Amino acid sequence: MENSQFDLKGYLNKNRDLVEAALERYLPFKEGIYKDILEAMRYSLFAGGKRLRPILCLAATEAVGGSKEIALPVACALEMIHTYSLIHDDLPAMDNDDLRRGKPTNHKVFGEAMAILAGDGLLTEAFALLSHPDLTQNIPAERVVQVINLIAQAAGYKGMVGGQVMDLNYTGKEIDLKSLETMHRHKTGALIVASVKSGAIVGGGKAEEIDALGEYAVQIGLAFQIVDDILDVEGDVAEMGKRPGSDAEQNKATYPRLLGLSQAKERAKECIKKAIKALEPFERKALPLKAIAEYIGKRRK
Amino acid sequence: MENSQFDLKGYLNKNRDLVEAALERYLPFKEGIYKDILEAMRYSLFAGGKRLRPILCLAATEAVGGSKEIALPVACALEMIHTYSLIHDDLPAMDNDDLRRGKPTNHKVFGEAMAILAGDGLLTEAFALLSHPDLTQNIPAERVVQVINLIAQAAGYKGMVGGQVMDLNYTGKEIDLKSLETMHRHKTGALIVASVKSGAIVGGGKAEEIDALGEYAVQIGLAFQIVDDILDVEGDVAEMGKRPGSDAEQNKATYPRLLGLSQAKERAKECIKKAIKALEPFERKALPLKAIAEYIGKRRK
Repeated sequence: MENSQFDLKGYLNKNRDLVEAALERYLPFKEGIYKDILEAMRYSLFAGGKRLRPILCLAATEAVGGSKEIALPVACALEMIHTYSLIHDDLPAMDNDDLRRGKPTNHKVFGEAMAILAGDGLLTEAFALLSHPDLTQNIPAERVVQVINLIAQAAGYKGMVGGQVMDLNYTGKEIDLKSLETMHRHKTGALIVASVKSGAIVGGGKAEEIDALGEYAVQIGLAFQIVDDILDVEGDVAEMGKRPGSDAEQNKATYPRLLGLSQAKERAKECIKKAIKALEPFERKALPLKAIAEYIGKRRK
Repeated sequence: MENSQFDLKGYLNKNRDLVEAALERYLPFKEGIYKDILEAMRYSLFAGGKRLRPILCLAATEAVGGSKEIALPVACALEMIHTYSLIHDDLPAMDNDDLRRGKPTNHKVFGEAMAILAGDGLLTEAFALLSHPDLTQNIPAERVVQVINLIAQAAGYKGMVGGQVMDLNYTGKEIDLKSLETMHRHKTGALIVASVKSGAIVGGGKAEEIDALGEYAVQIGLAFQIVDDILDVEGDVAEMGKRPGSDAEQNKATYPRLLGLSQAKERAKECIKKAIKALEPFERKALPLKAIAEYIGKRRK
């Protein structure tokens, strides 16, 4: 499987534009009684995210031969859930971050109460979007229900919410590698896996295809987090959009702290290799997913 | 439509027990990695709520001739969403309440970070429950998607979340009756309407039945809030489980403040009358809903 010809940058730009335009259609700004909450929700939703989860979702749909158009609402719902989690994680009671992607965090701009509600609103809107009568009319209803369940499980207490709780509990404590991985599998991994699998499901993928793409997603999810930890040590504020070293300051468990920097890098490479192996059955249809895996391994911000 | 024979107390007790048992099945406590978050979620979920929304959902299912068993997951999802909204509304950044139903609020027991996450977890779990493969297998998938959309819309920024934003914005300001009603229609009304309509939908109700029950719900929702405001003026701490007069202290707009106490009581009565009128086509099958409407008009806590 060669991808030397594959233009990842072009692919990411094209699909990011597709996602931006769809998010704008699904959550347009309107004057009137919902003005304030829409403003707060949209501030974070359009704060310059990489749209990694929605793009993974669309790429997984392509990998199983499905139409990207059909997967767009699912892709955008995933981004809404991701954005809600960032808003709540940044709150003073949680990580207490003032900056996110180089911009003031939601509560810094709109206040704590509104930030909590903006997060709540985005999480709920994700499920409204996933079940929207017009947008789901070309997807068998059974598949819609399956995708909603998958995403709700991944975002909930057995997934992302649970991971955030573990993160809070571990802060300032010594933890072992196994616990660190369990935390990351929940906190960031679960939604990445759900992004890929939900794309494969709406695209009409077979059970074994969904499983293979799930394995791909587990590996890139892990790699993503390890690289994140590494960047926290090595990055600078201009590239990261947040202060590097803040994890260490908060005494958080990270891969570099547990494994050492070079071992952590090695670990990330292994994950990327496993991810790419899981794509073999898809041949050229998985070129975008393969390129994304390589990109995650090499990203600098 | 007579209901002098109808044993409302018995009906409420029986259905509350049904809901309690189902909630316990759907969100059981387990030792292990989800222990902490489950504890926080369950603390508020089992804090002695009246289970009004789930009971309304079940009663609406009965009114259209459906089976209560099938509606139970929907009923419990509604209670999870209601509970999440209470946890977040009580937070220091929002209403800053220390007591709820006579017990310390979630953040008082578990801390702010955990309370935010417990709310997030309950909201998300509601959608996992609504789409659960085993629990939805006897409901046509189209109907499941319809119910999820209805509930997500009612809970989101165009419903409950939007209403909470209006509430925050209006605190300390003079507002007119129309704005007050718009706020309540969003903050509490939308989820009550969704409770009744979703019960009618899973129960297989016809479009005109769903509409009639929707009108019933709009009216009892409004009455419920007016009575709540009246109780805040007249109630005592033992009955209410919170300090009376706290709305006035926070300078919040209420029906008694805008209409005067006796006009507010008159208004609540009118709503109950309209609600009962909407039930006429259902005859004896709507006896529980009728009795609930009367109970809302007369409740003392």
